[in-house]
Amino acid sequence: MKSIYFDNASTTFPKPQSVPQAIYQYMTASGVNINRGCYEKAYETEELVYETRQLLTSLFHGPDCRNTVFTKNVTESLNILIKGFLKPGDHILVSSMEHNAVMRPLNQLSHCGITFSRIPCDREGNLYLEETEKLLQKNTKAILITHASNVCGTLLPIKEMGGFCRNHGLRFLVDCAQTAGVCPINMEDMNIDALAFTGHKGLLGPQGIGGFLLKDHMIAAIDPLLSGGTGSISHTEDIPDFMPDRFEPGTMNLPGIIGLREGLLWIQNTGTENIWNHELALTERFLHGLFPLEDDGKLRIVGRKDINNRTGVVSIQTLTRELAETAWRLDEDYGIMTRVGLHCAPSAHKSLATYPTGTIRFSFGWWNTEEEVDKAILGLKEILYGN
Amino acid sequence: MKSIYFDNASTTFPKPQSVPQAIYQYMTASGVNINRGCYEKAYETEELVYETRQLLTSLFHGPDCRNTVFTKNVTESLNILIKGFLKPGDHILVSSMEHNAVMRPLNQLSHCGITFSRIPCDREGNLYLEETEKLLQKNTKAILITHASNVCGTLLPIKEMGGFCRNHGLRFLVDCAQTAGVCPINMEDMNIDALAFTGHKGLLGPQGIGGFLLKDHMIAAIDPLLSGGTGSISHTEDIPDFMPDRFEPGTMNLPGIIGLREGLLWIQNTGTENIWNHELALTERFLHGLFPLEDDGKLRIVGRKDINNRTGVVSIQTLTRELAETAWRLDEDYGIMTRVGLHCAPSAHKSLATYPTGTIRFSFGWWNTEEEVDKAILGLKEILYGN
Repeated sequence: MKSIYFDNASTTFPKPQSVPQAIYQYMTASGVNINRGCYEKAYETEELVYETRQLLTSLFHGPDCRNTVFTKNVTESLNILIKGFLKPGDHILVSSMEHNAVMRPLNQLSHCGITFSRIPCDREGNLYLEETEKLLQKNTKAILITHASNVCGTLLPIKEMGGFCRNHGLRFLVDCAQTAGVCPINMEDMNIDALAFTGHKGLLGPQGIGGFLLKDHMIAAIDPLLSGGTGSISHTEDIPDFMPDRFEPGTMNLPGIIGLREGLLWIQNTGTENIWNHELALTERFLHGLFPLEDDGKLRIVGRKDINNRTGVVSIQTLTRELAETAWRLDEDYGIMTRVGLHCAPSAHKSLATYPTGTIRFSFGWWNTEEEVDKAILGLKEILYGN
Repeated sequence: MKSIYFDNASTTFPKPQSVPQAIYQYMTASGVNINRGCYEKAYETEELVYETRQLLTSLFHGPDCRNTVFTKNVTESLNILIKGFLKPGDHILVSSMEHNAVMRPLNQLSHCGITFSRIPCDREGNLYLEETEKLLQKNTKAILITHASNVCGTLLPIKEMGGFCRNHGLRFLVDCAQTAGVCPINMEDMNIDALAFTGHKGLLGPQGIGGFLLKDHMIAAIDPLLSGGTGSISHTEDIPDFMPDRFEPGTMNLPGIIGLREGLLWIQNTGTENIWNHELALTERFLHGLFPLEDDGKLRIVGRKDINNRTGVVSIQTLTRELAETAWRLDEDYGIMTRVGLHCAPSAHKSLATYPTGTIRFSFGWWNTEEEVDKAILGLKEILYGN
């Protein structure tokens, strides 16, 4: 049985063939560190890292490739931004759709006098933009929202929110975990001050690499959460104040960066618009296939039921079978890999009225096909109408 | 010209062939995330991660493989340990040989009422153990030392220091960046409470993976520096208090872990003693070759001049040529890759009386040969006696 991978919102699979190939090539033929060795091979690798920063900066319309920082994942990026930027006494607004990569750090900070409020969203995950102003406090310093829900795929209005932040003198931070490499993101147009991304989802790199981009005025405002050797100003025990060294202590994940570079090049050649359109076409086909099952009371489609304003992520709740049993049978009998549960986003599930049960999530990627979607619809029918 | 890689203290190269192969295999054939997907492939990958924890726990004689945590590098590990364990009002002792991965975090903490003192070392990098007691303060909570200097390879007496900590009721933290996979390390015998390692040096994995091991009593004592989704207790916005989830938020570097696993298996088969003996034999040959040059006033050997109590790292200062020029010519004319400068350890260079000039560092690994060492000696002779 050919397996069908519908867990692309967790990590995309497969990657473009050039991604593992470049990693293998680097590890066998080059393999050295950068910023530290005084030899030709080190400079060659450094050039590849620099190019990767450029590709990311260009993709997100960032201000300067020195302001593009590598981390291990978007969780680290968000921790650095949240814990480094907020100070005791500060207040921040987040959406009610945030992942625990945002909520757990904020919850930690609530013990040191940093507070937050949630901008509510409706049961389809759409943000009530008009509620934002009412939640402002005198000490509100920033707004941080995800670009798209990892549970139901609904996009949040980051362009509008960027304008709101500009008008209210607030900093704007965006978590692009679910959209980077697929949906258009423009730090300049959208007035984004700091953007966190991960490399192994829409950017098609390996797990273990992520990062963030900063506008210039954010650099000094963020205290580095991590510090250590940078291969620069090594005569001091102070942290460099220049970029990217300020936020990149320790040996970098060079295989990860080199893999990510290939993912970015592949995306550049393929076109994000084509990728997004493909994922939305599969999403539409899947939704249409599910409507009769929803009408029959077999399942609930969670989130939007159209393909406006969304990514290729669809969550459902089966109403006549346990979620876990359904997901297990999809894997066992049809080779269909999904993800079941709360997807590390309890707040989002409360908004979507799927807490604490969770959902079965199907998330589509470039290599998924219509036939695979049809098989998932068939599988769900057989499971939910069968014994 | 065949290149000669003498920068193994920065990152080992090459890796065992099984390391890039396993990464390639995982990325092309499996590639999925763990702890999050309800499908067979996710469980298979989870098993490989579990085995890697077991291999590390066994190598370091750690208490429980759940207490073996993955990070991106030893710098992250040390930041988590230092910033999570020390609280305002605490004092810690470190050696004067520490890397900036220790000193920069401590320097940051000095602004929040956490203080440190340096246990002095002699000009060969040997720690004055007898000075330790005098430096104790009423609020001294722990001692943190590197196992071996990354500048000159001198080992620090971690077994004796572990005993000292036991006798004085102090916690003992060790940075094994330079020794893991080569020198014997036993958390139980050496009374080590927390051990930080990196995966891409002696453990022969790729860059981008590291970690730490904790004794049970350290778990609750360390506040997590990073937090986020863990795929566990996803109904709450609290951080799990169980291991390893408490310290492993976000998507893991699975290619990195799978590569590290192969490095660990290779080490298990080869034997750390054989690896260390090989590196020391090369070190001895190199030192003997350098003695006449030192006698002639052409260079100074920095650190120990014998192979007792050391790793395969040799630093020199050329006295008649600039260090950078010498290193550049070694690369250009002989294909020899070294590392020149302060190696992110200004404190160590102050101890070794090589601050602020630094040194040229030669660091040997398993795949280096006697012929390569002889070529380095020849190269240095030609450069230092020639025009």
